[in-house]
Amino acid sequence: MGPVADPTATAPKQARSRVTRRHLLEAAVSCLAEHGWAGSTVSVVAERAGVSRGAAQHHFPTREDLFTAAVEYVAEERSTALRELFHAGPAARPAVVAALVDLYTGALFRAALQLWVAAGNEEQLRPRVTELEARVGRETHRIAVELLGADESVPGVRETVQGLLDMARGLGLANLLTDDEARRARVVAQWCRMLDATLPDPAGPA
Amino acid sequence: MGPVADPTATAPKQARSRVTRRHLLEAAVSCLAEHGWAGSTVSVVAERAGVSRGAAQHHFPTREDLFTAAVEYVAEERSTALRELFHAGPAARPAVVAALVDLYTGALFRAALQLWVAAGNEEQLRPRVTELEARVGRETHRIAVELLGADESVPGVRETVQGLLDMARGLGLANLLTDDEARRARVVAQWCRMLDATLPDPAGPA
Repeated sequence: MGPVADPTATAPKQARSRVTRRHLLEAAVSCLAEHGWAGSTVSVVAERAGVSRGAAQHHFPTREDLFTAAVEYVAEERSTALRELFHAGPAARPAVVAALVDLYTGALFRAALQLWVAAGNEEQLRPRVTELEARVGRETHRIAVELLGADESVPGVRETVQGLLDMARGLGLANLLTDDEARRARVVAQWCRMLDATLPDPAGPA
Repeated sequence: MGPVADPTATAPKQARSRVTRRHLLEAAVSCLAEHGWAGSTVSVVAERAGVSRGAAQHHFPTREDLFTAAVEYVAEERSTALRELFHAGPAARPAVVAALVDLYTGALFRAALQLWVAAGNEEQLRPRVTELEARVGRETHRIAVELLGADESVPGVRETVQGLLDMARGLGLANLLTDDEARRARVVAQWCRMLDATLPDPAGPA
């Protein structure tokens, strides 16, 4: 026998490794959202994902590696899902705005917020989270421009889209401790009307 | 002698007690903003305020008492300062919006955010912070309505003001890890223009 790898076993092994990695990332985001940075360690996530601590550390050598990778992975999944949702072409403005605002009300936003706030007080975390947030922010802005059919060469349009995403982030924060859905729906409906005056709706009036 | 209080000493003693209380509250907000909930204890704050731990506990029996009182106290100070700033009558719209947004970019917002995020994971803190945030939120809304000269009997006006404060909160979050001042000024200027179409500016055009 000896240490000769079975070539037919490589592909399934890589697939298993990818599945393990995904389980770890998803467990890390849930853990961060529920317990905050202080309660989120590699061991807790490994147990939650049903993986040994050693296997978790093989994928992510440090705690910072695991949690920044987790937030990035889930953010990418959300971006892809959002693009696919409106794949068919221009959608009604209120549906697009509602979907953008929804990016900030779930477990991903909760997890990212925990990481963000912890990074303010932890030197080791700060540069990585700053860089991650800039990357995720740029990508979210790109998607918003695309889905809103916004022409950023028109003065004020870029800032309009940015302000909308800032409002969405603020609405996410307002939803952290209480269910703010009813108020949020009214605010979003009103700001959609105000948006129409600045950004012509490519799908036309609803 | 015996335990008879000197009546002339009562007034200065009360004044000293008020000063100690204020020092504790201000130290608690700075501590929360810099070190987060995990790094904020009654002992740390007492030392920072130059007060004994016993004296601090005389004013605030529990950690939750101290930090929720601190955020409330500083929020009230900010509200009073904001009202006084525009005491002379209707001010130019951009100045009012900038002052409202500024509520969310300093140490008070950082401290409140730390408390808010910690409350998501701490059962003891959650009901108190939820109640505190509702009270501070209502007061901020009242000030915004007053300073913007907004007539909430007009449909959509209430939601317009709410959305503006949600955006201000989101802008505060964007400023947490990086200095976002230049971008924020552009976003605020654009959204002021959009606001003018919905809320007539009582001070007239700038």
